[in-house]
Amino acid sequence: MRLFVAVLAGGGGERFWPLSCRARPKQFLRLFGERTMLQETLHRVRHLAPAQDVYVVAGREHAGLVREQLPEVPPENVLAEPCGRDTAAAVGLAALHVARRDPKGVMAVLPADHYIADPEGFAETLLAAAELAASGPWLVTLGVTPTRPETGYGYIERGPAIGEVRGRTAYRAARFTEKPDQERARAFLARGGFWWNSGMFVWRADVVLEGIARHLPELAAGLEAVAAALGTPSRDAVLERVYPGLPRVSVDYGLMERADNVAVVPLEAGWDDVGSWPAWARHMPSDGRGNVLQGRGVLLDTEGCIVRAPGRVVATLGVRDLIIVEEDGRLLVCARERAQELKRLVAALKEAGYDDAV
Amino acid sequence: MRLFVAVLAGGGGERFWPLSCRARPKQFLRLFGERTMLQETLHRVRHLAPAQDVYVVAGREHAGLVREQLPEVPPENVLAEPCGRDTAAAVGLAALHVARRDPKGVMAVLPADHYIADPEGFAETLLAAAELAASGPWLVTLGVTPTRPETGYGYIERGPAIGEVRGRTAYRAARFTEKPDQERARAFLARGGFWWNSGMFVWRADVVLEGIARHLPELAAGLEAVAAALGTPSRDAVLERVYPGLPRVSVDYGLMERADNVAVVPLEAGWDDVGSWPAWARHMPSDGRGNVLQGRGVLLDTEGCIVRAPGRVVATLGVRDLIIVEEDGRLLVCARERAQELKRLVAALKEAGYDDAV
Repeated sequence: MRLFVAVLAGGGGERFWPLSCRARPKQFLRLFGERTMLQETLHRVRHLAPAQDVYVVAGREHAGLVREQLPEVPPENVLAEPCGRDTAAAVGLAALHVARRDPKGVMAVLPADHYIADPEGFAETLLAAAELAASGPWLVTLGVTPTRPETGYGYIERGPAIGEVRGRTAYRAARFTEKPDQERARAFLARGGFWWNSGMFVWRADVVLEGIARHLPELAAGLEAVAAALGTPSRDAVLERVYPGLPRVSVDYGLMERADNVAVVPLEAGWDDVGSWPAWARHMPSDGRGNVLQGRGVLLDTEGCIVRAPGRVVATLGVRDLIIVEEDGRLLVCARERAQELKRLVAALKEAGYDDAV
Repeated sequence: MRLFVAVLAGGGGERFWPLSCRARPKQFLRLFGERTMLQETLHRVRHLAPAQDVYVVAGREHAGLVREQLPEVPPENVLAEPCGRDTAAAVGLAALHVARRDPKGVMAVLPADHYIADPEGFAETLLAAAELAASGPWLVTLGVTPTRPETGYGYIERGPAIGEVRGRTAYRAARFTEKPDQERARAFLARGGFWWNSGMFVWRADVVLEGIARHLPELAAGLEAVAAALGTPSRDAVLERVYPGLPRVSVDYGLMERADNVAVVPLEAGWDDVGSWPAWARHMPSDGRGNVLQGRGVLLDTEGCIVRAPGRVVATLGVRDLIIVEEDGRLLVCARERAQELKRLVAALKEAGYDDAV
């Protein structure tokens, strides 16, 4: 089975300020080890799909960065969006390119900024999902077994079993729930039969394009115009003209929640979408007092702090539950429990005229 | 009346880490405005004493810095100590040089790292103290009227009035008290008749040398050897040989607390020895929530913080009562109430091998 990969590398990443910024969002950063998150995303599937079968969708301003970070991917496979139109449009654009090469080609849609602790387990699951997708008209999503009552993720309720693929049971999705409150999240966890929506999908190009035609006709019409121009000299001009008019909608909300052919393959591979500094810290070694220190320094009478300041010497005294990050002349000191509000802080910086810092 | 000035520019200044460091202690920093604290100390007395009558005592490693910052002071007036031996030795060394030019010369001893809000008021008080010192064998100290129950200063209890000088009443000192606890400090403030010991003194060179001879004979003997070598080619060698053997004692403890000819001239000029970051912040403009920000940045839901990071963009969110200082690759984040423990933090950095940062 031939597997195409569509990496979604859009997204602003304000929640990792000051490391991330408009010019270099989270997916282009080395948050873990030597590879950027984008490079790691490709590295995880390197033995499943050759680089010429990989497409990367990114904002036009980041296309150069993608090509720089992924020299093995053919430059024309980097699909530059003239403007951001959320994930349904990005997925549709990638699907057009896959369909042109193989209408029934199976494609895995992978966000460029997720963390996966067990890449082998992930690859196995992805192959199972691909096998299921190849076999029929399924919109397959990878559902992550929840480990805590997380309120930052969407949840998928389990429907009836579909069958076995590569030793795993696949299920129908019964229902999608947007980010729940704490009480509901606890109830989901207690009741069982719920997964986190990982935002990773596997389907045939024709199946997803059919789904878009049915549930997002406006998007489908726009994509049709783009499809007609692919391989012609007018491609860029058409993209430029059509893209701004496409509906701004996520693939979850626009397609998955409305379709009745959604299947779930459970994923247990230490997945995390790493949506914040505390999420990042979960995957880093910490000292006996819950501190994560990346860089040089001394943390005296300090607890629960996340400190990242490569190339600096940091000293803390008598503080707790802080996020302290220094990067290239930008310094963040934030209460750990307020990490989700970094977007507000970045907006405040912009408003205060610090455009060079955001 | 001719007034000599002896500036004491020793001292390590760990309490202003990361701005201060071994190579550049507090007195050599621009903590307030354009002038370093050393330069400001001299600037305050520029119309009271010509630069050739100014001596500066500093550690040998800082003599170059002193000459650089005070180009108007003759280089030979910068007295380099081979090693630190506390203030009694430094004062004695300066007194030898003054006595050589004028045995009865009046000298003002001024630490190089104090803040004074009202330099005119200070100059007036200094002149009054100088007049008193010129008139007799007084060890005159400037006593600061306390404004809060500070536990970080020594206190002087008021004795009987001596008389009027330049419209001010001078008093005998009845008793010196080392840094009191909170309860005693409150009692002093409530009872009245106490001053903070400013560490600024005015006396004739012969009077202070007599005092040293009487109360610190060991120091006096060492100074005698140095005095004999002044103006000879062996001066440096003698200093080198004698200095390490001098007793390590402060002028307060070794001389003032033992002498019975101590006079106090009250000083009300907004004096502060600026012994910590919070003390520094007292003299800086703050926003409506008690934050002092020196540098560019946004403080969101932030209270009582001291932020200094020139050339950086700082953003804080949801924090309170922190000291955040960045300087040249060194970053401090410290609970405001723990500011007095910075020495401990610097020691911990040293111990952890960050010698380049302290």
